[in-house]
This record gives sequence, C-alpha cells and structure tokens, in this order.
Amino acid sequence: MIKAAVLGTTGYTGLLLVRLLSSHPEISEILPASSSSAGEKLTSLDPGIGNIIEEKLCFSKGRLFTIPEVLKQKPDVVFAALPHLESAGLCSPFFGKAVVIDLSADFRLKDREVFKLAYGTAPPREDLLPSAVYGLSEWYREEIKENDLIANPGCYPTAALLPLLPLLDSGIILGDVIINAISGISGAGRKAKLGYHFCERTENVSAYAPGKTHRHSWEIEAELRKCSSNAAVLFTPHLAPLKRGIAVTTAAELKHASGSDEIEAAYRDVYGKSPFISLKVESIPQTGDVWGSNRCDIGWHIDKNKLLLFSVIDNLMKGASGQAVQNMNIRFGLDESSGLSCHGAV
Amino acid sequence: MIKAAVLGTTGYTGLLLVRLLSSHPEISEILPASSSSAGEKLTSLDPGIGNIIEEKLCFSKGRLFTIPEVLKQKPDVVFAALPHLESAGLCSPFFGKAVVIDLSADFRLKDREVFKLAYGTAPPREDLLPSAVYGLSEWYREEIKENDLIANPGCYPTAALLPLLPLLDSGIILGDVIINAISGISGAGRKAKLGYHFCERTENVSAYAPGKTHRHSWEIEAELRKCSSNAAVLFTPHLAPLKRGIAVTTAAELKHASGSDEIEAAYRDVYGKSPFISLKVESIPQTGDVWGSNRCDIGWHIDKNKLLLFSVIDNLMKGASGQAVQNMNIRFGLDESSGLSCHGAV
Amino acid sequence: MIKAAVLGTTGYTGLLLVRLLSSHPEISEILPASSSSAGEKLTSLDPGIGNIIEEKLCFSKGRLFTIPEVLKQKPDVVFAALPHLESAGLCSPFFGKAVVIDLSADFRLKDREVFKLAYGTAPPREDLLPSAVYGLSEWYREEIKENDLIANPGCYPTAALLPLLPLLDSGIILGDVIINAISGISGAGRKAKLGYHFCERTENVSAYAPGKTHRHSWEIEAELRKCSSNAAVLFTPHLAPLKRGIAVTTAAELKHASGSDEIEAAYRDVYGKSPFISLKVESIPQTGDVWGSNRCDIGWHIDKNKLLLFSVIDNLMKGASGQAVQNMNIRFGLDESSGLSCHGAV
Amino acid sequence: MIKAAVLGTTGYTGLLLVRLLSSHPEISEILPASSSSAGEKLTSLDPGIGNIIEEKLCFSKGRLFTIPEVLKQKPDVVFAALPHLESAGLCSPFFGKAVVIDLSADFRLKDREVFKLAYGTAPPREDLLPSAVYGLSEWYREEIKENDLIANPGCYPTAALLPLLPLLDSGIILGDVIINAISGISGAGRKAKLGYHFCERTENVSAYAPGKTHRHSWEIEAELRKCSSNAAVLFTPHLAPLKRGIAVTTAAELKHASGSDEIEAAYRDVYGKSPFISLKVESIPQTGDVWGSNRCDIGWHIDKNKLLLFSVIDNLMKGASGQAVQNMNIRFGLDESSGLSCHGAV
Repeated sequence: MIKAAVLGTTGYTGLLLVRLLSSHPEISEILPASSSSAGEKLTSLDPGIGNIIEEKLCFSKGRLFTIPEVLKQKPDVVFAALPHLESAGLCSPFFGKAVVIDLSADFRLKDREVFKLAYGTAPPREDLLPSAVYGLSEWYREEIKENDLIANPGCYPTAALLPLLPLLDSGIILGDVIINAISGISGAGRKAKLGYHFCERTENVSAYAPGKTHRHSWEIEAELRKCSSNAAVLFTPHLAPLKRGIAVTTAAELKHASGSDEIEAAYRDVYGKSPFISLKVESIPQTGDVWGSNRCDIGWHIDKNKLLLFSVIDNLMKGASGQAVQNMNIRFGLDESSGLSCHGAV
Repeated sequence: MIKAAVLGTTGYTGLLLVRLLSSHPEISEILPASSSSAGEKLTSLDPGIGNIIEEKLCFSKGRLFTIPEVLKQKPDVVFAALPHLESAGLCSPFFGKAVVIDLSADFRLKDREVFKLAYGTAPPREDLLPSAVYGLSEWYREEIKENDLIANPGCYPTAALLPLLPLLDSGIILGDVIINAISGISGAGRKAKLGYHFCERTENVSAYAPGKTHRHSWEIEAELRKCSSNAAVLFTPHLAPLKRGIAVTTAAELKHASGSDEIEAAYRDVYGKSPFISLKVESIPQTGDVWGSNRCDIGWHIDKNKLLLFSVIDNLMKGASGQAVQNMNIRFGLDESSGLSCHGAV
Repeated sequence: MIKAAVLGTTGYTGLLLVRLLSSHPEISEILPASSSSAGEKLTSLDPGIGNIIEEKLCFSKGRLFTIPEVLKQKPDVVFAALPHLESAGLCSPFFGKAVVIDLSADFRLKDREVFKLAYGTAPPREDLLPSAVYGLSEWYREEIKENDLIANPGCYPTAALLPLLPLLDSGIILGDVIINAISGISGAGRKAKLGYHFCERTENVSAYAPGKTHRHSWEIEAELRKCSSNAAVLFTPHLAPLKRGIAVTTAAELKHASGSDEIEAAYRDVYGKSPFISLKVESIPQTGDVWGSNRCDIGWHIDKNKLLLFSVIDNLMKGASGQAVQNMNIRFGLDESSGLSCHGAV
Repeated sequence: MIKAAVLGTTGYTGLLLVRLLSSHPEISEILPASSSSAGEKLTSLDPGIGNIIEEKLCFSKGRLFTIPEVLKQKPDVVFAALPHLESAGLCSPFFGKAVVIDLSADFRLKDREVFKLAYGTAPPREDLLPSAVYGLSEWYREEIKENDLIANPGCYPTAALLPLLPLLDSGIILGDVIINAISGISGAGRKAKLGYHFCERTENVSAYAPGKTHRHSWEIEAELRKCSSNAAVLFTPHLAPLKRGIAVTTAAELKHASGSDEIEAAYRDVYGKSPFISLKVESIPQTGDVWGSNRCDIGWHIDKNKLLLFSVIDNLMKGASGQAVQNMNIRFGLDESSGLSCHGAV
C-alpha cells in the first residue's frame, strides 16, 4: 500500500488528485497539503468531496497539512500540483526520499535555453534536469518505471504529441505541423480573474497566446526534436466555454501516399496495449466522450498529401491528474489503469 | 458475483448504469439490452465508453441484446431503464426469476386512482403493486432488503422527499409545502426534440408543468401521505441550462419555534449512518458539489415560523441510476456504497 | 436632443447603458465616466463596442471621463451604475442640475430602519429619500414624469413585483407570498471572484442568501406595504449557469375562487397599454424569450386555492439598464419604448 | 420605404431576419412566409418576438403567409432562408419582380462541377448562375448595388474570406492555407436532432466534416480562385458549446518578410470605410465581442515566415441574416449599416 502526498491541494488538479487517490485501491493514506489553506478542513474548503474521505486522511483528521508536516509523514509518492517556477523548490525536500511526480513545467524542458525562452528565466533546479523523465506515459513507460522524478506533461503537449509521435517516428509524416487546440476553461486554473468570469467566457470563443507566445509550444517542439524531427511547430490554443476537455486538430504533410490502414497500423504498433488510447477509425473523437476518463481518443482524415489528426483528452485527467496517477501506477508496478476510469461521463 | 441486465441501455440512465456496473466490484457480467439497437456494438453506439467494457460483456461480444436473449442468460438483477407504461410489461418475464429494479414510474404509486390521475391510465401491472417497494433507499432500507421488485423513485421526488420526510415524521413541520425545483436537461431524457436543442435551452430558464400537471407531484404527495401527513403539495419544476443536477427549495411551516439544532438532530437521527446524505449546517448545498456522486446534500434556513429546505442531487445518480445501484447493494447485502462515488466531480 | 452621462461605465449595467444610449434616437451625446478607468479608451476597455461609438463620444474622444469632467459637460440626464452606498454621494453634484437615474439601492427604500436592516447602515442621503421616486416604470409612470431623482428598482424586485402588484391591488390574492427566483450570473456584477469563475458556475445551481439575508427581500416587502398589503415575503434567490435572465415563481393564496379570466382582466386593466408587459395566457414564460429585450412576460397557474405566478425578465435590461432608459423616456416625454427592443434575441 | 418578404421564417436565420427588419427604419412592411407553419401566428410560434411586431405585419394580421400569398403582396425584396437545393425553386416566382437575397448555397458556386462535388447534384437553377452575385458585402459592394439576385455567403466562408482576400490580393501571402474554424451550434440549424440535444453538446467540442467533406470548403476555394490564387484550402470546422459565434484561425505562408504594419495597411486599404470590419492590431478577437453585431473583427500574428489570421463573426448576423440585410442596404442605396448593430451584446 502506498502513502501519497498532494502539494497544492486547492487547485483543480489538486482537488482531482485527492478524489482519484481516495478511490485508488492501492492508496492507504492521502496527505493533502496547501500553503494557503493549511489547517483548514478539506471538506469545508471543497464541499464536493464526501465525508468518507476522512478515512484516508486519518493523520491529518481531515485537515490540510503544511509541507514540513507532510515530510514528517514520509510519503511514498508526492504529487506536486504547484505553480511553475515554485514547484521545483517546494519539492526539493522530498527528492531522494519519495517518488516525485511534478505537474508543473519545472522539469519538462531539458534545454536550459529553451526553458528560458519559454519561461523567461533559468530552470529552478537545473541540476536535476538530467535525472527527470518526461512523463508521457505511453511513450516513456520504461523510463518512468525506473525514475524517481517524473515531469508530468502539459495538457496541450499530451493531446498534441500522442497522435504525432508514432507517425513521425515511423516516417509517415514529415515537415512542419500546424497545431490548433481548443481547451476548456479549467486549463487556466482556479484563479479569481475577470477574464474567467462565467459571463466573460460563456458564448465566447477565441484564440490566445499564438505561436511561441504559449509555453506549451516549446514543450511540444522539444519532444518532436527527441524524435529526430526538425518539424517547426505552429501552435494556436483557443478557449471555448466548457469546463473540461481539449480537442487538438493537427495538420501535417504525408511523406508519401499513405492510406488509412498504414496510419492505423502505426498507431496499433505503438499503442496496441495501451489501455487509455482509443482509435477512432471511422469517426472523429469528441471531448465529451473522454470527459472524466483518462483516455486519449485519436482519429484522422487524409486530404490528398495532407493529413489531419484529431485527438481529445480531458485536460484535468489525461492532461494532468489522471496521467500523474497513471505514472504512479507505472512507477510502482501496479496495473496501469488502476484507479482510473476508461469511461467518459454520460 | 452478480450478473446484471440493463433494459433500455441507450438512454442517459441506461448508459450510466452500464458505466456504474462495469466498475462495480461485485458485478461479474453486464447484459445490456435495447429494443431499438439490439445487435449494435455498445462502443459504436456510445463512444464515451472505453473498450475495456467488453471484458464484462463477454457473452454479447460487446453487442446489445434483445430482451429474450437477456432472459436466456439468467441475470440475477434486472435494471429497467424503460419508458413509463411500457416498463412493467417488458419486465414481466423476469418477475420471480431475478430481482427487478424498475426506474420507470410503473410501480411507484400504490393507489390505482392516483396513478390514473398522474398517468392518464390504470397501472399496467396492478396485480403487482402490493408487492413492489418504493426504492427511496434511506427511507425503506429494510423493505428493500427483502423485496424482489423495487420501484426506483423519480428524480424530483428523491430530492424533495429526503429533506422533508424526517421533519414531517418527527413533527417539526406541518401543513402545506411549496416545492420549487430546478433540473438539468438530462432529466428530460435522450430524445431528439426541438425543445431540448442546445440553442433552445442555453441562456434559458423556465418553469414547466406546474402543480398537479407534473406526475412527480403525485408521487411526492403519495409518499407524504404514507407519513401520515395531509400536507398539500404545490410543486413547480424548472429547467435550467445544465446537464445534470437538481436543486430543490421547499418552504414549509414550523409547528413550533424550532432551532437549527433541533432540525439537525432530526436529520442525524434518521440519516446518521447513511453514506450518501450530507448535512450542510452552515452553508447552502450546490448541485455542482454532487455532480457524479450519489449524494444528497441537505441544508436549511429558518425565517421566523417558516422553514426553507435546500436539497441537491445529481438527477442521473441519486435521482436514477445511482440510487438503483444503491438499491441493488442493499438488496444483495453488499456495502451500500459499493461502486458508487461519494465525491462530486471537480 | 439629450446629453446623457453614465457613471460607472465598466460594469455590466454601465456597458449596456452605453450601448442602449448610442443607438437611442434622442441621445445626441454620451459622457461615459469611470473612477477606475478614467482616461482609457472605451473601445480598448470594451472590445465589444464598435468604433462607431466614437461619434457619440465626441467631447471625450472616446475616452472615459472623471466625474468632475462630466459635470462640466452639463448632462441632461445622469445614469449612475455605481455600488450601493457609494452612489448617492457620487451623484450629489448632479442633483438640481440634471435628472439622476440611480441604479443602486441608495434611494429605493424610504424607511430609514428598513434600509439599515437591509444594508447595515443608514441611507447615505437620507435627506433626499422623500423626493426620490421608485422607478418601477409601469407602476409609478405618473410620478416618474415629474421627478428628477429616480431610484431604479433592483432586478429581483422588478421581476417579482410586476406580476404581484396588480393582483394585490385588486384584492385577488391575499396573505403571504413565497417567491423563488433564478438568476443568471451577470446579476452578481462584473467582479473577479472565484465564485463566479466559469468552472465554478457551469453545471451548478444553488440557492443563496435566502429570506431576509438578501437585500432585495426588503425592497419587495417595502413595495407590497405601499400597496396596503401586510403580506410576509419569503424570498429565495438561486444562481443558474446562464449570463442574463431572471425567472420568478411566486406562490400566493387566492382570496376567493378566481378564474384565469379574472386574473387576465386584472393585468389587462393595469398593463393594457404598457409596451413591455406581455401576458402568456396559455403558456409559461421563458427567460430566453426576453433575452436582450426590455419585456417582462407574465404567466400564471391556478391550483385550487393557490396561485402560481411566473415572470421573466432580462436582469440587465428590464432589471437594470433597460428600465433605466425606459424611465428616462418617461421623464423626458419621449415614446416609452424609444431605443429599447421589444424582441428577445434569437 | 421597402416591403420585405422572408421565406422560411421559422429557422434561426428567418427568425432573426424578422427581428432585424422589424426595427429597420426603411422597412414599411414584413411578409413572413413558412411552408410548414403558414396560417399560424408568428407571436405564438416565436414567443421571443414582441407583440409590437404586428404593426409591421398588417396584411397578415400577424400570421405566416404561404409563398403564393407573399407573391400577391408584391414585395420589393425577398429574403430566402430556405434549405439548399430547395431554395432556388421556391424563389423562382420572384425573379424579375423583386430583389432576391438567397441565404442558401444554390447560387454561390458558379462552376457546375464544383457545385456537384459539394452538393452531390447539379445546381438547381444553373441558368441563373451567371447573373447571381456572391454577396460578400465588403468585397463585391459594387456588383451588389446593381444586381437583383444576391447569393448570401455561407457563415464559414464569410469569416474565412474576409481576412484572407486582401492579403492574397495584395500578394502578402501565398501558397496553401490551413483554416480551422470553431462554430456555435446555431450554425447547424433549428432541427430536432439528438446530436444537437443540450446534453450532447454541452461540455463537448469536436471537429466534424474535415477537408472537402464540408461544402463550405468548396465555397472558400472558389472565391480564392477568383482572386487568382491557386491556394489549396485545408478546412476543418469544429463545434463548441455556444449558441452564436464563429472563430476562424488561418495559417498561411508569408511571401516575404512582412511586418505587422504592412498587413494592417493592406486591410485599411480595402476595409478602411467598411463599418463592420474592425481591426485588432494588438489583441486577438473574441466571438463574444461580436455577439449580436454585424461586425467581423480581424487580428493576426506573425511567426517567422508564417502568418496566423484570426477572425470572428456572429454566424447568424454577419454569417447570415445580418449580412443579408447589409446587402439589401447596399442594393437599395441605403446607409450600409442601417438597422444593424455595430456593438456586440454585453
């Protein structure tokens, strides 16, 4: 049985981690921490959570910990759902003592210069970059098994890379990729900001942070580079009025006249045994179908020498907390889908 | 281990039942049936469901059954998610052979004349009315344990009765009750109808079917009568632009000057050990908090000699499929919360 | 032609006032003011407004004024869309120089003690209370014509009072009234607050501030008193996930067995020539039907000796800015519906 | 003064046309027709419309006409809001007698073969194709002035072409264009279909009909061809959970290193006097800003040799009924913005 800590409990990813861990069959205890709300009762702060949670919060009597308190409890795994640039520092006391799964960007980019371009400053714990594994579960499963510092991927990169990597790797596509993504509002975090007011977002769709002005653009490009691809990435995220869900549409060039069968085969080859990848051979995936699940549904459309890739995830699940739990499962040798739903909500 | 059939798989309650049963630890096999879509693959028809479901659909190879095919498989429990007035007849072959949990209204009203007033015709299987138990889990737990025909309550009655019954029973309130309810659109069912078009319901709220023109008004009143109350019920349902959730606000008269403590005590007395009832002593419940959970959250407000009761449920969970599974758990002697979430979605 | 100032331009009611005035045929010039954003360009601050607005903002060159700057321009009418308790003071320089239409609550309650119960402090300009008229257009039309200080009603009171007053006045109903209201989120104002985050409000409905804890409860009761009614008001507002719209359902007792005809006649008698009251004799009004219009649609349902009243408005239009313009029209002797839409949006 | 007929009144574009025409200062009379609902009262069928409409429906006493009845009334202009392939035939009696503004696709594509590829059959009135003008107001203003058959553009083509044409025309961009569009649900029409049920679309985003499988792809390409461009168009529309609004993001290649100034100049050159084009030089347009207005807001972002174009419209306004009225204004020599809002709703 595993003792799991959550740092940064009060954001959307933290709140979801607590829910996932509380119904995970291999978790004996949850240690929820929050710098802003330590000492408060979790059920007061989050009325959506059932009282039953307190059984798994026995040491804290249902109250949020400080990080030093968590440290004393010696967790086996630490999920850090903390802001970029702060996370690496706050996780530091746990390195070497627990498996750390960091949902921030602090360990995602290996290249110091790229990190600076994306985040405006040097990586906070540059020394640890070499030892961190990029936690795209289906792609780095073997490395994740053996690593104690897992950089959980961004939501957009997860949705964009899963359909792209097998086709780049097998040489089916080449050249530049144009990635358009549409995200629900929870991706922006749980912050009191006028721009996220219900009345400002309902009946409203727009692009934002296009091209290299969005940090995830750098993260996507960095992973393509590892795949020996020189592809330039032109990435445009959009916000739409839903809570959870990311739909990515990627346009790429086919190297030669590939048929749908060849594409399907490339995916089956890589993802055949992945419980959370679902191929939509004759239909187009919808975010509604993966709402609440840890799945990534993938579809495609061939238009002469161009290929359109469609991928959808729940940004809080496969795009954040769900993939973090999946990575824990992999790292601790559990069933990869333990505690995670394959079904989207009705 | 239990073999469970679902009749009427393709509606919202049927689709949710399949999901709940597929992750229920005591269900060995699911037999999904549909008159309109028999033979079709469940995963084609419902792309939200993961391929993993097929493990629990082994006999059907992932395809939907006809009712006769289900019968041959000898299910232990049958969930009927079928239209009112049709359900009783379609369930008939299973009576005496399986526990039947009927989500329709066909067995909810014991009084022939009341049934006719509410549904415009006599009850379809009047002969069985005496043997059916009204499946309001927290209130009829003992009867449910011993009964093979369970009439699962309507969504509005569930949300309205849970806060009302303990206070009527303990004599804290008296006289007439004014019940206002707001429901998400899924309560109207999965039907192609212009009135449920996204554009007709978004940015739109309205009352509908006020007073005795809504069938649930009769159902609520019938249960109050069992509680020796002569209270007249004035019920007004409203539709609001959300998918899942019911919020009920009930105004009643206090018999004498009761304080909040007395009300809380009455609830703790009845619901103290009920895993799905959560009291909000100092706050007002919100439907968002119970989205996806089987909980009913209850709050109240005293205004001189008047009492306001607030209750929220997820209409598809505690208001339909979740309570149906809860009733199965009770009937089969399982942990009452087995396979059901206490937590609302983030 | 009329020169109109708007104080507090950057809230939802201020932004809507600017739009309504800019297409109003009798407005020659708009003077938009804002304490927080004076000097900024209106079109930068509010990208929804078209550049064409600048024609009517000639003196300000499209920029927001301070209040002293507005004063120098000598407006004929001042719309104050300012916070309660601040509004009266900020409007003071204009009294005696312009017609002031105050959208705050500062002049709505005539009774000092009632004001204190509702707002926790004495009315800020108690001296002016006797001279202010309550701007419920259809009910105080004659007084509005002759008054230079108009207290524009609250959104809930407008929607609740319009169906109630004619029936109380004609003696059709008596006794206590139970008022349930459902409002869109814009009623909460344009504030950066976590509780109004898209993700906190979508798929979420709840009651809030029940009974006398909502200030509008006092405002409704005060107007019923003027109608010689002793009716106790039990008011419960709810928030639902839409931007604009209020639906009110009121339960009252019929004095004697009144038919639908009698009720309709009472309404026609009072509202027969009111362009913005629409009676729904055989249907139930929906907020979607009045979205963007200045209408109040009214319907009813008789249940034995009880009467249910249904009324819907757009909270930003008839519930705030629209009624304010209607009051200006009345005060300046214009066509009452000038510059205001009778049609809801598609 | 102009007498205007609307054929196909009961769809979203028809209902909106009636509203726009009823407040248009140059329209003396509206003749609303419907094949399915002739004889019914417009206000019963569309409770959102105010009773005041009946003043402009004097001949019909508020009831819907048949097409032969409309013909007898000799309208000056006919708006056909009818299904593709049916529209041309139903409009036929009016050719030569009235200006016809056809909102269907029947006259949009000049090339017989392209029409067949897009619509699966030959154009219904091939004989009239040469005389029809493509009603993209800002681009074909002079032709529209002199033509009696105006093919009102599709919603996606309007939003995609307005930012593209000036840059193609001035040689700033070249080569293929990748067009991603996100639309509100009203674009799918007012049909009772399960796929448009509120519960199927809320919290759901997906691509649909990618590439040449969407008819608008052909329409966009046909207009680019007129601009002497050989650009291949790769078009992917998406549905998002909002009622009204289209956001288009187009990726194109810059011919040479153009700066933002050069792009802005190209737009100002073409659209400088167009009341409904608004350039967002330092921000990204949002559909919420143009909700209810006839505007198209345009922004852009340069990423090395790639250019991203952002355009937003209200699909029912500039994408359909609003542009149709704009075209009427142009054709009849009225102020181009008469009866049309430049402001988006709050």
